[in-house]
Amino acid sequence: MQVPAGPKGTRDFFPENMALQEHLFSSWKKTCERYGFELYDGPMFEHLELYKQKSGDEIEDQLYFFKDKKGRDLALRPEMTPSLARMVASRGRDAKLPLRWYSIPRLFRYEKMQKGRLREFFQLNMDILGIAEVSADAELIAAVIDMMRDLGFTAEDFKVRISSRTLLEELFIAAGLARETCAALYALLDKKSKIPSEEFERDLMGVVPDALVRTKIEAIFGASSFDEICRIGDGLPSVKDLLELFSLLSSYGFSDYAVFDIGIVRGLAYYTGIVFEVFDIRKSLRAIAGGGRYDKLVSLYGGPPTPAVGFAAGDVVLGELLKEKGLVPALRPRSICYCIAVSDSDSENVIALARELRNRGVSCEFPLKNTGIGKQLKLANAARSLYALFIGGAEGAEGMVKVKTMATGEETLMPRNEIVGKMTALAHAAHESLKR
Amino acid sequence: MQVPAGPKGTRDFFPENMALQEHLFSSWKKTCERYGFELYDGPMFEHLELYKQKSGDEIEDQLYFFKDKKGRDLALRPEMTPSLARMVASRGRDAKLPLRWYSIPRLFRYEKMQKGRLREFFQLNMDILGIAEVSADAELIAAVIDMMRDLGFTAEDFKVRISSRTLLEELFIAAGLARETCAALYALLDKKSKIPSEEFERDLMGVVPDALVRTKIEAIFGASSFDEICRIGDGLPSVKDLLELFSLLSSYGFSDYAVFDIGIVRGLAYYTGIVFEVFDIRKSLRAIAGGGRYDKLVSLYGGPPTPAVGFAAGDVVLGELLKEKGLVPALRPRSICYCIAVSDSDSENVIALARELRNRGVSCEFPLKNTGIGKQLKLANAARSLYALFIGGAEGAEGMVKVKTMATGEETLMPRNEIVGKMTALAHAAHESLKR
Repeated sequence: MQVPAGPKGTRDFFPENMALQEHLFSSWKKTCERYGFELYDGPMFEHLELYKQKSGDEIEDQLYFFKDKKGRDLALRPEMTPSLARMVASRGRDAKLPLRWYSIPRLFRYEKMQKGRLREFFQLNMDILGIAEVSADAELIAAVIDMMRDLGFTAEDFKVRISSRTLLEELFIAAGLARETCAALYALLDKKSKIPSEEFERDLMGVVPDALVRTKIEAIFGASSFDEICRIGDGLPSVKDLLELFSLLSSYGFSDYAVFDIGIVRGLAYYTGIVFEVFDIRKSLRAIAGGGRYDKLVSLYGGPPTPAVGFAAGDVVLGELLKEKGLVPALRPRSICYCIAVSDSDSENVIALARELRNRGVSCEFPLKNTGIGKQLKLANAARSLYALFIGGAEGAEGMVKVKTMATGEETLMPRNEIVGKMTALAHAAHESLKR
Repeated sequence: MQVPAGPKGTRDFFPENMALQEHLFSSWKKTCERYGFELYDGPMFEHLELYKQKSGDEIEDQLYFFKDKKGRDLALRPEMTPSLARMVASRGRDAKLPLRWYSIPRLFRYEKMQKGRLREFFQLNMDILGIAEVSADAELIAAVIDMMRDLGFTAEDFKVRISSRTLLEELFIAAGLARETCAALYALLDKKSKIPSEEFERDLMGVVPDALVRTKIEAIFGASSFDEICRIGDGLPSVKDLLELFSLLSSYGFSDYAVFDIGIVRGLAYYTGIVFEVFDIRKSLRAIAGGGRYDKLVSLYGGPPTPAVGFAAGDVVLGELLKEKGLVPALRPRSICYCIAVSDSDSENVIALARELRNRGVSCEFPLKNTGIGKQLKLANAARSLYALFIGGAEGAEGMVKVKTMATGEETLMPRNEIVGKMTALAHAAHESLKR
């Protein structure tokens, strides 16, 4: 009989795969907590309507959706922001703003599989709600940079690429475009780098038939630096915001990590201000993270008007980049101590010692069946234990325990009544050094 | 417009609810690691067939199941063991036994809502695969006891109630019952405590028409102690196993926590040996945890014969018990330091200090908008910060920072160039004391 496989687009996390996930999640958690963010979570599925309200009916194509036994339309969550906005909206005026919230949701999208894209994946989500000022955008961009730095990446590895939805709108309107046409142009700009330039030219002519306006639009699209945009859009409120953003990022010491990029539009329609994406330096992978300001979502779900800014970073692309850069840490010991019974009659003493060690927080195992010393040492190796403790034998009769350091093979004798204290100190030292 | 609610039977975890979850999960993780268990995870949904293979077609009634866009039958996972067994089976003979694996899965069951039961919940799962000896059962029962102890529960709060599927079968057959009838009797025994005694008598008469056999069965069911069972089943292999189990638990120092209970059958058909459930002392709540030996599941999915023993503990009942016993810890500080700008022009210095603190791992926030000192102190309170640091003012001009201890209101002055080192030490001390 063939062993069944898991569903397409999902992953089995064996302990050796889980180690990378744990590394990623604990680094994420550390960064969030340093920035004063609090953990929240929502249901794994929501009413289908929640996603349609934000993204339109066509979102169904990307969703796992189904009816429950009472005929309710439900969908596995494809992103966290709708649940977040619903939860904040449900608090109404009682939400104690500003909120600094983070989550590490498991998400589901029924999409074509490709490199860096699975149907089941994890994200880090960080959001600040209640601050309309650009300082919140800066704080979040600083957080995404520190998230990358904590994982070991440098300004040589990645860049945060920043633009603004308001900037585009203001520039387009100043260039003579009608407000209703802006959305079509965002979509076109969003796919500019993904389609041949002739196709782009043709599509642009369709959206902007007026040659004079089109020339101005092309000048905007072609702007190669923020300085150039500042000249074109001199005095526009959105340009002022971006200038302040870059000045704040300089206060954070993060100028090296952030660049202006007119091509960053973000596909989702709900962004209302500054938007950003994080890419590896060569842009060889999909976006590592993306986010921006979305001031209208909480009120869309019936909550009070609530300014908001957030970003999401996925685990799949980041995992690839960690592997590529050699930043995946080695597997940790499964247990610090492995207790070996010198003879079968020592197993009761093995349990007693294991119990004392575990009571002190020292991870510890033993074979759970009678077997020879050689086999037990192999099991200690398989457990990646740092120390093997030999219980019994001639040493045991004299009140001693032989301790073997697995990495070096070195053996020392310790009195039985001191072993727990000594191993506790060694375990503590090992944990500290494993923390980096 | 009304704010939409989440789906029935699910929970929104606001940060204040999440704190209990985090407490539970980190305690679970700590216990598992002390016992040398490694974390794994599987997909959130599996092929529907996986669950039917283990539990029969009637499992559909309890599942959220659906077809994906390609017509595949999928189901949200209602338990973790099928994914575990599938993963281990997929490794075939390459699985390095024994495995000590744990997981904290989010699970879904479409069930009638009642106290302690939701449609979306979490579990701790611990399993040992590859050990046929009763020492693995003892190790897992010790682990579930230590899980409860780490949460603050004592032998006055809970008991592990232990029985054995093999014991029942051996006793029933020794009493003259046909092997085929055993399953019906397990089911009857499982519901004995939940139905009126007349109903039980009537059902028993149906399953066991022979009066002589029935008398023996009633004596088994009525056994009030393990000693009595030992007399009835003297010499049976399963009695020997149970005697060894209780002897091992005594080596672990856990005799006070474990009792024999003939009424523990476990509803699931797949158990093959010792079974156990953890209940609060008054049995006023649903089971806190349950588990046992299941030696045939890995081979059911096409893997090699693999002895296995495991248990699962749910978050909902445990959360209720923690609240009932006053064991829910207080909310932790959202950030250790809150940086206050004495005047609007100090905000750049606030960012610079926050950056230094965060670089040292000290959690830190600031208001992200210009506002008065009184308002900023309120925000520091809302963030449950331990210290407010005043940046600027007369003290700032002299190179000093005023530090206010929020709990006492006490204020001290520290040199700006020493503040990061001092706050790092204070934050470290605070974290150590919060660890208990």
